[in-house]
Amino acid sequence: MQRTQFVKPEEIEKRSMEIIQKELGERTFPEPEYSVIRRCIHTSADFDYADNLYFTPKAVKIGMDALRSGAHIVTDTTMAMAGINKRVLKSFGGEVHCFIGDEDVAREAKERGMTRSAVSMDRAALLKEPLIIAVGNAPTALIRLYDLIQEGRICPVLIVAVPVGFVNVVEAKELILTAGIPCIAARGRKGGSNIAAAVINAMLYAEAQDQ
Amino acid sequence: MQRTQFVKPEEIEKRSMEIIQKELGERTFPEPEYSVIRRCIHTSADFDYADNLYFTPKAVKIGMDALRSGAHIVTDTTMAMAGINKRVLKSFGGEVHCFIGDEDVAREAKERGMTRSAVSMDRAALLKEPLIIAVGNAPTALIRLYDLIQEGRICPVLIVAVPVGFVNVVEAKELILTAGIPCIAARGRKGGSNIAAAVINAMLYAEAQDQ
Repeated sequence: MQRTQFVKPEEIEKRSMEIIQKELGERTFPEPEYSVIRRCIHTSADFDYADNLYFTPKAVKIGMDALRSGAHIVTDTTMAMAGINKRVLKSFGGEVHCFIGDEDVAREAKERGMTRSAVSMDRAALLKEPLIIAVGNAPTALIRLYDLIQEGRICPVLIVAVPVGFVNVVEAKELILTAGIPCIAARGRKGGSNIAAAVINAMLYAEAQDQ
Repeated sequence: MQRTQFVKPEEIEKRSMEIIQKELGERTFPEPEYSVIRRCIHTSADFDYADNLYFTPKAVKIGMDALRSGAHIVTDTTMAMAGINKRVLKSFGGEVHCFIGDEDVAREAKERGMTRSAVSMDRAALLKEPLIIAVGNAPTALIRLYDLIQEGRICPVLIVAVPVGFVNVVEAKELILTAGIPCIAARGRKGGSNIAAAVINAMLYAEAQDQ
């Protein structure tokens, strides 16, 4: 194999985005939503995200503004936490939290007969707002979040609702879309921690470019 | 929405696997390869993995045996590291390593004009074998790994070659498949850190069930 076939690493992202744009063909999307769609396709090589990503009005703009003002993020998985660009987030004053591995969360989940993901949302409700909640794995996190919102115990500025899976996932995403909170959701089965991180990073990078 | 629509969390994985089996219809796959295919679909809700996953002869069996004997894993991303079930891995005596965030790796990458991902493979070559290398993001990691294998500086027991993307990715995966090392690859553009973790976890869980 000729090594000259390989593109220089610093040019890869630019070339990748050009390929995505080209393969989307005639389809156009408004900004800043398009920057989120593009990054989700970039992170998965899956063009389904051009169809399944759903945005409540101005959700991306609201997320970008919140990140700029130093909003913290709570996510349901250590994978999503690992994937979020914490250097850029920190430059705006934000931090990312994940309670899934905490021993007291595990203990409380057992005592209350809930999942650790659900109890994690109770922990999120104790944090100072504004908060962005990013769910990449657990439908039970979204269901618990819905209840906490109904009870007035949490009011996220934005919910990123992109759990992946075959059971409870579609229903949980449709439920959270009725909560009356700005939301970016991957409708249907697809999503994941990588997609949760991609949505957040797209908003962070759009912010960074604006500066 | 009726909450009774929701399936109990402990039943979700079983139900999910049944749905995947059903939707694959008449298609059958041999074990233990099928357990890897199934978990990749489970983690992405993307049935393309039934077609694009490629296994060199006995690659999954080799990986399972290596994990059972306490093989360590090196991965190119903190997301894949976060997604690998370290509790089960540790029960076999294994550990997972990721050098991408190390300051000396960043420094050396700058000095040598390489990517941090590529230098990470040089670090992997210093570890005690047997090693499994799992690449979910960086084609440059696979290219560097190929060179190190050619130079006789590393001989992984298994390579999980599942970077995702539009540029260099297909070429790097095809290159590593010529290295003469057992390999599990997602051919084409798709893959990712979530898929790298899913492949490793499938082998860990198959092991755990065997015990």
